[in-house]
Amino acid sequence: MPQFLDTTDAGFEDAFVALLGMKREDSPDVDAVVADIIADVRKRGDAAVLELTAKFDRMELTADKLRFSEAEIEEIIQQVSDEERAALELAAERIRAYHERQMPEDARWEDAAGASLGWRWSAVSAAGLYVPGGLASYPSSVLMNAIPAKVAGVERLAIVVPTPDGVANPLVLLAAKIAGVDEVYRIGGAQAVAALAYGTETIAPVDKITGPGNAFVAAAKRRVFGKVGIDMIAGPSEILVIADKHNDPDWIALDLMSQAEHDESAQSILITDDGDFGRAVADAVDKRLETLERRAIAGASWRDFGAVITVKDMEEAAALSDRIAPEHLELCVEDADALSEKVTHAGAIFIGGWTPEAIGDYVGGPNHVLPTARSARFSSGLSVMDFLKRTTLARMTPDALRAIGPAAERLAKSESLEAHGLSVRARLDKLNG
Amino acid sequence: MPQFLDTTDAGFEDAFVALLGMKREDSPDVDAVVADIIADVRKRGDAAVLELTAKFDRMELTADKLRFSEAEIEEIIQQVSDEERAALELAAERIRAYHERQMPEDARWEDAAGASLGWRWSAVSAAGLYVPGGLASYPSSVLMNAIPAKVAGVERLAIVVPTPDGVANPLVLLAAKIAGVDEVYRIGGAQAVAALAYGTETIAPVDKITGPGNAFVAAAKRRVFGKVGIDMIAGPSEILVIADKHNDPDWIALDLMSQAEHDESAQSILITDDGDFGRAVADAVDKRLETLERRAIAGASWRDFGAVITVKDMEEAAALSDRIAPEHLELCVEDADALSEKVTHAGAIFIGGWTPEAIGDYVGGPNHVLPTARSARFSSGLSVMDFLKRTTLARMTPDALRAIGPAAERLAKSESLEAHGLSVRARLDKLNG
Repeated sequence: MPQFLDTTDAGFEDAFVALLGMKREDSPDVDAVVADIIADVRKRGDAAVLELTAKFDRMELTADKLRFSEAEIEEIIQQVSDEERAALELAAERIRAYHERQMPEDARWEDAAGASLGWRWSAVSAAGLYVPGGLASYPSSVLMNAIPAKVAGVERLAIVVPTPDGVANPLVLLAAKIAGVDEVYRIGGAQAVAALAYGTETIAPVDKITGPGNAFVAAAKRRVFGKVGIDMIAGPSEILVIADKHNDPDWIALDLMSQAEHDESAQSILITDDGDFGRAVADAVDKRLETLERRAIAGASWRDFGAVITVKDMEEAAALSDRIAPEHLELCVEDADALSEKVTHAGAIFIGGWTPEAIGDYVGGPNHVLPTARSARFSSGLSVMDFLKRTTLARMTPDALRAIGPAAERLAKSESLEAHGLSVRARLDKLNG
Repeated sequence: MPQFLDTTDAGFEDAFVALLGMKREDSPDVDAVVADIIADVRKRGDAAVLELTAKFDRMELTADKLRFSEAEIEEIIQQVSDEERAALELAAERIRAYHERQMPEDARWEDAAGASLGWRWSAVSAAGLYVPGGLASYPSSVLMNAIPAKVAGVERLAIVVPTPDGVANPLVLLAAKIAGVDEVYRIGGAQAVAALAYGTETIAPVDKITGPGNAFVAAAKRRVFGKVGIDMIAGPSEILVIADKHNDPDWIALDLMSQAEHDESAQSILITDDGDFGRAVADAVDKRLETLERRAIAGASWRDFGAVITVKDMEEAAALSDRIAPEHLELCVEDADALSEKVTHAGAIFIGGWTPEAIGDYVGGPNHVLPTARSARFSSGLSVMDFLKRTTLARMTPDALRAIGPAAERLAKSESLEAHGLSVRARLDKLNG
């Protein structure tokens, strides 16, 4: 049973705050182990990576086998059905089209003082993408990480994906190929992150590492941050559905379950202005939980973290949504576009009943790597911007320096930075002398 | 004496790699202390902040005095001279004009499948800015942090600035006022970061914290990251000047010293295609070091981390520059614009001999908060983007769902996410039935 809350109840505010503050994830403290692994890879390079791969993935490799060869990839991807290939290609095409629109523009202008100012965007030279192995090895995530990198213009894009016992996921390899990935390595864990960040004899270092992973991977990304850039450390997935009574309760139930089935720590919340509808959705969830393949996972998530909140009206729904700042927000109401305008903090909004969140996981176009755990208050989903950086440009003329140099000199003096002031003064003296 | 390197020397590559890898900063490990402070502030709120302020800043306050009143601010800023005020206002105006151009645009379009896609930018609701106390309390940094936040549209912008022994910096308070800061608190250290992140009875929590600080502040920012957003953790400042012989060696010397005077760990590097010019600059530095107010600091930085590198030509200079990925890059060469085009990795470029880096610290317009320690390979200076986040939008129509839904269903099956597929299938069945 999920929680049933009603904003008109006396205890609502406390219950809602408790819901917001729920700790859904126990991250084991693996930092010491990860620190040792990173130090080992930095010191011994390939030899350390090979040993750790033998230990954790039960695979005896040699350095020349760390990377998948083109021939191997071609052979393995033959296992993918035509239908799956077509679906991946459609997804890739739509994701690419969406992300191409995100490319920011360079700028250069001259201002009133005669100074030429601007900025220039450029791609990181090399990026590494972590792809989990086993059950969480999602080809869709390969597309969602790799395509923005390639659209941004990353020249060298490497993937690391563990293949425990040597088992590779053909769809992951095909997704990598479709996305234009340049190198694929069959390694995982903290050792793979360390190899990407610091490089080994076989693996050249990268500048940025993205992609999801387990506690070891997350701890390793935190540790190498600074040496390289990283994307966000994602928490368990969440969905908030705001729905009125003019919806099929079963559709909404399935949308809620499509997050819950990811992880026992996932969270699915329904906000509705109709208590009866809320109960109907909960009943529909119970029915679906009888047969869903992942009912154990989805059921635990719904029981422990699920909630059905009844509100007075959609204004109130929008206000609660902003306090939740959900990763995924689905708006199944009559004027969904209007409601979406009232919401400020959300990773992604799915507007209207014909837009189940699952569309966004695969083929919608926008990225499915999104801020979790209320971080949509201050951060955004993955985009081409994560693989770009901006260089600011300034060029003074003698006139511009005459106009604004004295103010710089004055402020440098106020901050007791004499050489700053002198570097301006020397030029001003030349102009005046 | 700085290092003198020449790319034609046999040992150059090794020496250059050593230069790149130099460890310039010893960060004391204050993490355990900081963890305790944060836990204390979370638990006891104002009481903890007041106790810690009494201890570290030797100031006995009460909760109602944590925040500067308007009247206090007005009184203190009377100490600022007209000339200083005018300089700050000019700086603010130029920084504002530059950052206003950075505002990204929302987008919404319909694609061939009939899906409506797009994104929307919105500002972080509340941001906190850390301003160091004492010698490193720079009013220019207040402008550089606060103006982008206000341009982005941050509604509530709070500053924390320690005032050891009760001494406030009038220029910092005036800069805050000019930039439109809403609240100023006279607290600092890890306790101030904790108060901003978690809130106390007096201080409402914020969503994003930016600004420089000492080791305690940096450790606290790292710890609260996730609960709130943070900007980069900046390392000691750096400048790379690329100059040919057609420059006054003294100007270049002053530019190098304007970084060196910040910090003994700062780094100033000159690359030139003329060895004699390089030596002339080094001589000019020595001469300036005889009289500079901060000669002890600047001299130590130049001796320990300074370098003069002679290259064959400017192509080689650009290539080395990209390997350094400098925070500040100054191009004092004949066709400085052309050379700037050859450089990919730099935080900010100062183009031509009339653009000393110090202009950029104060009045140029671009931000002076820039990526250090080679992180310009993957990150950018502070901008309005740091105070904005993007929500992606997707709206399907029945036709769009018909067109792309089956691919989503197929991929969901491949990833063993049944409910994902069913949420699409239920709708497709309705359309078909």
